[in-house]
Amino acid sequence: MQTSIATVSLAGSLAEKLRAAAAAGFDAVEVFEPDLVASPLAPAQVRALAGDLGVRIALFQPFRDPDHVDPGVRARTVQRLHRKCEVVRELGCDLLLVCSSVHPGAVREDGELAAQLRALAEVAAGHGVRLAYEALAWGTHVADYRHAARVVAAADHPALGTCVDSFHVLSRGDDPAGVAALEKVFFYQVADAPALGMDLLPLSRHHRLFPGQGGFDLAGFHRAVLASGYDGPVSLEVFNDLYRQADPGRTAVDALRSLRHLADLAEPGTLPEAPSPTGWAFVEVAASEEGSPAVTGLLGALGFARTGTHRRGEVDLWTNGGVRVVVNGRPTRARAQLSSLGLQAEAPHALAQRSRELLAAVVHRPVGTGEAEIPSLVAPDGTWVQFCGRAPDWSEDFLPVPGREPAAGPRLREVDHVALPQPFAGFDSAGLFLTAVLGLCGGELSEIAAPDGLVRSRAHCSADGAIRIALEVGPTSGRLRGRPLASGHVAFRTDDALAAAAAFAAAGGEALEVPENYYADLGARFDLDAGFLDRLRALHVLYDRDEAGGELLHFFSRALSREFFVEVLERRGGYRGFGVANTPVRLAAQRRAPGE
Amino acid sequence: MQTSIATVSLAGSLAEKLRAAAAAGFDAVEVFEPDLVASPLAPAQVRALAGDLGVRIALFQPFRDPDHVDPGVRARTVQRLHRKCEVVRELGCDLLLVCSSVHPGAVREDGELAAQLRALAEVAAGHGVRLAYEALAWGTHVADYRHAARVVAAADHPALGTCVDSFHVLSRGDDPAGVAALEKVFFYQVADAPALGMDLLPLSRHHRLFPGQGGFDLAGFHRAVLASGYDGPVSLEVFNDLYRQADPGRTAVDALRSLRHLADLAEPGTLPEAPSPTGWAFVEVAASEEGSPAVTGLLGALGFARTGTHRRGEVDLWTNGGVRVVVNGRPTRARAQLSSLGLQAEAPHALAQRSRELLAAVVHRPVGTGEAEIPSLVAPDGTWVQFCGRAPDWSEDFLPVPGREPAAGPRLREVDHVALPQPFAGFDSAGLFLTAVLGLCGGELSEIAAPDGLVRSRAHCSADGAIRIALEVGPTSGRLRGRPLASGHVAFRTDDALAAAAAFAAAGGEALEVPENYYADLGARFDLDAGFLDRLRALHVLYDRDEAGGELLHFFSRALSREFFVEVLERRGGYRGFGVANTPVRLAAQRRAPGE
Repeated sequence: MQTSIATVSLAGSLAEKLRAAAAAGFDAVEVFEPDLVASPLAPAQVRALAGDLGVRIALFQPFRDPDHVDPGVRARTVQRLHRKCEVVRELGCDLLLVCSSVHPGAVREDGELAAQLRALAEVAAGHGVRLAYEALAWGTHVADYRHAARVVAAADHPALGTCVDSFHVLSRGDDPAGVAALEKVFFYQVADAPALGMDLLPLSRHHRLFPGQGGFDLAGFHRAVLASGYDGPVSLEVFNDLYRQADPGRTAVDALRSLRHLADLAEPGTLPEAPSPTGWAFVEVAASEEGSPAVTGLLGALGFARTGTHRRGEVDLWTNGGVRVVVNGRPTRARAQLSSLGLQAEAPHALAQRSRELLAAVVHRPVGTGEAEIPSLVAPDGTWVQFCGRAPDWSEDFLPVPGREPAAGPRLREVDHVALPQPFAGFDSAGLFLTAVLGLCGGELSEIAAPDGLVRSRAHCSADGAIRIALEVGPTSGRLRGRPLASGHVAFRTDDALAAAAAFAAAGGEALEVPENYYADLGARFDLDAGFLDRLRALHVLYDRDEAGGELLHFFSRALSREFFVEVLERRGGYRGFGVANTPVRLAAQRRAPGE
Repeated sequence: MQTSIATVSLAGSLAEKLRAAAAAGFDAVEVFEPDLVASPLAPAQVRALAGDLGVRIALFQPFRDPDHVDPGVRARTVQRLHRKCEVVRELGCDLLLVCSSVHPGAVREDGELAAQLRALAEVAAGHGVRLAYEALAWGTHVADYRHAARVVAAADHPALGTCVDSFHVLSRGDDPAGVAALEKVFFYQVADAPALGMDLLPLSRHHRLFPGQGGFDLAGFHRAVLASGYDGPVSLEVFNDLYRQADPGRTAVDALRSLRHLADLAEPGTLPEAPSPTGWAFVEVAASEEGSPAVTGLLGALGFARTGTHRRGEVDLWTNGGVRVVVNGRPTRARAQLSSLGLQAEAPHALAQRSRELLAAVVHRPVGTGEAEIPSLVAPDGTWVQFCGRAPDWSEDFLPVPGREPAAGPRLREVDHVALPQPFAGFDSAGLFLTAVLGLCGGELSEIAAPDGLVRSRAHCSADGAIRIALEVGPTSGRLRGRPLASGHVAFRTDDALAAAAAFAAAGGEALEVPENYYADLGARFDLDAGFLDRLRALHVLYDRDEAGGELLHFFSRALSREFFVEVLERRGGYRGFGVANTPVRLAAQRRAPGE
């Protein structure tokens, strides 16, 4: 697969965009005309720069409004095409994207339209340039890719073909099956998009996403394009307000990751195969010297015991039943923060190799003599992800602490989920990492009204639910009001949240205080036994019920820092959610007790 | 008019919201249930706090999904209503907002729906509570305010009336004429909204605006509600992602400003009458000691002469024909920035009085003996706005500088417009200030793709076009990439931009360099004489043409600071725009030469 990206998908000057695309590893770029027009580099200099960087310029775009009922306008269009074909050639490429017309003077009759396009193709051919005609989803008369293909067939000129763009097909709800039957596909653009309930034009201009970040079935689309016989570049054309302002180097890495993942989804085996992680080995909390007593105090109250200490010191293993927490005593930006996720993997090294192909930052922790080598990745937000195999066993790197009895706190079953806060522009990037690299599946987006703005959250789960990672992101300008609005946390599952809350309190644990108004509302919303409601209230346990009658009982520790707290939850009757209905209450309570 | 605001319109905790509403001067609030549920204050404490602050709690909301085909659900709804009516009473109010049902179990038949609502009204009446039934624009069966009114009439219970909300009527495109004929309007909510081309539910939840900030005809709607005989609170219910995260004190001021302006638009004379400003008296540039030589050098190259110096020093008057620029040598955050707009006003003191009623920050500059008192406002972005009457003449405060001949630069006609950069969350606030306080009319929103993100711009003009102020705002997280993306500037109009550019260059002025690719594209897009195009290119003059054939020629000085530069423009053939098509090129060029 030849990979390509449109310069409009990246922030910066044209030169910066080319450098970012090349650095990520793209084979080619599409040059977006406004990027060239605003650039001090002449087309020949752009060509030379691309050559130096080792990226090909696959296409220049867009040439708008090719047809017109007015002969005067047509004559000017021909002149315009001459000029633009010269630019195409100066750029060292031979392909120009032509969009279906969007003005009221567009030609309605297909025969006439074909004749006009044929005339333009003849002009282009004179320059050694080919035209790729694309149906914009909001084109005046030509909005359907099949329609565009019919007109191209009727025009019957060797320099005229079509461009198919997944956005323009799938956003309209068109059946992509006909793509496989297309002839003369000169170019293929691919973009994803979320279902935002908005008109296609603003959706296209502002909210396109890289494959895997939105809701389209792009694997099927991709297969259809390949079935048509197309073997040119697969090019990402992603108009996105956030990518326009993000670091282009990072965006380009995301972009190429999404393409490689798409190719593997469409044709499994394109990437090295490796089974996805299957469950939690551990979670690691980094605690500063000041934060350490609070972390170990909290773990103790939750019934964890310090059962191991790392051969090389500074790192302890705490266990409660099958749940293992690694406490890493190293300098951190907060008193405590979630620093690493240890995931069980059947073939850690194969998974690391696959991750590397997906442009993940693969690192190797320093390994002492006799220690297990744990292939590790750094996620886009800086959290480490470590793949733990059965042998060698990572936990054998910890020397047992003799004679430690489990503490008096509650018995925990397993890690239920972790939540990772993301920088504003990093939410979709992190989601792609979880889906492409870790094989998780993203759920619905939740929007939570917090006192200082809307928080968005999306859970990503493995197929069997054994791994659940929620991403959270604060509002646009969270810094406006000076408070971080999302913090990391780990949720432990128990079989009896009320007993766990009682044991936690008895062991000196401090739960996040839940306001009385919450319980009054709970009593109004659900038909709860008065004694049960009283117990929830007394223990600061929150409650939710889903439509199928499944129930969630959960409580939170007071935050240890602005970046870390712990949740304990019980799922009854197959409850699958995360208690998002209670999140506004939790966030408001944490604002009153934000941690240090 | 009793003024009210829903707590959901403001950021913060419930207590913070109440304090912000009270501080701005609202008479009443609606308490939004999730704000109460997340609050540690019991309803009686909320009531006491509101009493202490002098704001009335006018309504509690929302009570959702009142009707249901399932008798079991109905029975629970009655229990829920009992609980919520207790809360209403504890809050010290007697009105509960009931929304039309949005679930599939909603009652379809009006007679049955009326019977169910009547039964709920009877329950509420037992608590001394009244219900205001509102048709949500996306209600399952009841989505039209006339439908809601018919059901309420059929229910015929004294404790049941309607709530009309401008959003739910106007967003659907419903004819608001029937509002005037409504009986039993128990509550009136008002909100504006932009035309974003999106579904009503996300539009409602995220993008509502205060009156005057969006596209609805709210003056007409307001008159219709008053014509119905309604004399209760006029309440702002504005779900807006930015207001959710902005300083609630500032938002509340904007909110009350919008209501007072709405009342005056609906019934002119509600506010003290005062003619709007009629034109430019001067623009003031603040220049730091280091920036001052660059500012005066630029003015000199533009043909300005220093013709006056202020009686109390540190401030000079520079003139070019009828254009006057005040240069204020005081410490600034940038080397130079636009600091004050002097507007001609027929009755400056009446205008200041009207502005004060619109909650503008009215200040008085220190006035020395014999100096003109200039009533002044501080706009939301910190820019001063000064109202200059005919007598006393503000310019007489400047002592003439003898023997100063005009410099060799171009002759300028007038201030064409100024552009003011806004903080991300301040764009709509500043727009409201310009429309409500200065009587300008906001135009279309432009979105400009800059190298580091999307910049939005909206021009606000007086009816005759004599005053034009453009607001500009950078992308969401402009700070991500570390560069400010919008800067202030003043544009001067000339009758001959090419001659002006030549004179500017000859006088040593440095124009912003425009890339060659821009002129190549211009030649392709427009049928321009080759000699004319060469002159544009040689002088770094940009060009635009509108659909009616009007033309714009304009050039920019190199930026003096990251916050200030100057534009010189010529309008030919009635061109009315601002050359937005050229803004991406200008922004990219400024990124290469950002000023110090």
